[in-house]
Amino acid sequence: MAIPRLDFWYEFASTYSYLAAMRIEAAAADAGVEIGWRPFLLGPIFAAQGWSTSPFNIYPAKGRNMWRDMERQCEKRGLGLVRPETFPQNGLQAARLALIGNDDGWCPEFSRRVYVAEFGDGRNIADVDVLTEILREIGLDADAIWARAQSPENKARLKVETEAAIALGIYGAPSFVTADGELFWGNDRLEDALDWAKAKSA
Amino acid sequence: MAIPRLDFWYEFASTYSYLAAMRIEAAAADAGVEIGWRPFLLGPIFAAQGWSTSPFNIYPAKGRNMWRDMERQCEKRGLGLVRPETFPQNGLQAARLALIGNDDGWCPEFSRRVYVAEFGDGRNIADVDVLTEILREIGLDADAIWARAQSPENKARLKVETEAAIALGIYGAPSFVTADGELFWGNDRLEDALDWAKAKSA
Repeated sequence: MAIPRLDFWYEFASTYSYLAAMRIEAAAADAGVEIGWRPFLLGPIFAAQGWSTSPFNIYPAKGRNMWRDMERQCEKRGLGLVRPETFPQNGLQAARLALIGNDDGWCPEFSRRVYVAEFGDGRNIADVDVLTEILREIGLDADAIWARAQSPENKARLKVETEAAIALGIYGAPSFVTADGELFWGNDRLEDALDWAKAKSA
Repeated sequence: MAIPRLDFWYEFASTYSYLAAMRIEAAAADAGVEIGWRPFLLGPIFAAQGWSTSPFNIYPAKGRNMWRDMERQCEKRGLGLVRPETFPQNGLQAARLALIGNDDGWCPEFSRRVYVAEFGDGRNIADVDVLTEILREIGLDADAIWARAQSPENKARLKVETEAAIALGIYGAPSFVTADGELFWGNDRLEDALDWAKAKSA
């Protein structure tokens, strides 16, 4: 029997993607499911529906409750939460790096560290120095990786990934998509998505 | 020790309020929490942020996934789901009736029956005949209740309730609010809200 697979589509600016990133590998291991880490950009998707920033900024009551909910969720899960000065942060460079991480096998570790820097420590992940520090912390040759991340091919790849997300029906993050194309939106649906992935491969 | 209380703010047009309405009394009984049923209208709240219909209609990808998610959730919970021809439906009359139900003690039963008619059977709850039928099914004098529901005092009361919802920070439905003002949004947060209500009254 093939190992069931679930794609985890995430945006580095997304608060609930932080919650999902920090728990998905343990949950997937329990379920016997393999996770595909799929960084993408929500910015173009939001822009296409007329939003120039996060809906949590556009709709203040929704935004207030999101941050309060994040406080409660992070406390429950033992995760740090420092609200960054800037929200949403520009996750473009982090996403380009994460794609290289997928080629080399360090994407999950890198992505978790980016989320902890951003939402656990309140740092600015649009700052290349912050990202360079993370690359070095996991023992990588930062200069070589930056060069690959900034190549025209890799930039194009991120655009293709974002187009692929739209084609799958994705409109927010995190989203989970099974091999048979079933889309689940939101950290709260991770367990349902893992169950679906398992049931369909059984 | 006082019995902890949780207010359940719901809108009759809301799909996820259907899920919450059908399970909240059992979950609350398990938790030893008393539920306040608080019907309100999302229309004025949506209108104030520039929406003339449900965000599930305004953003098609979000709407498609909501209906698919409802199919999965209803199947998991053993609830019927027939997508109504009109969405969202106008829940104004149902909400006015439900307030009378709060005075007389039949609000939960009435509200569940309205949701089953709307989302379980795909009927139109803006149709007064559908609502009258429900009132009669639960053994009530429909004419007398309609007269009270349409009184100027009761119409004003629903407006006051909707203003109270806004003052609590509510921007969607279902929402749950504890006695100490903690707001939880969405059917997925019912358990957290019950836990909070219990912990704060302990």
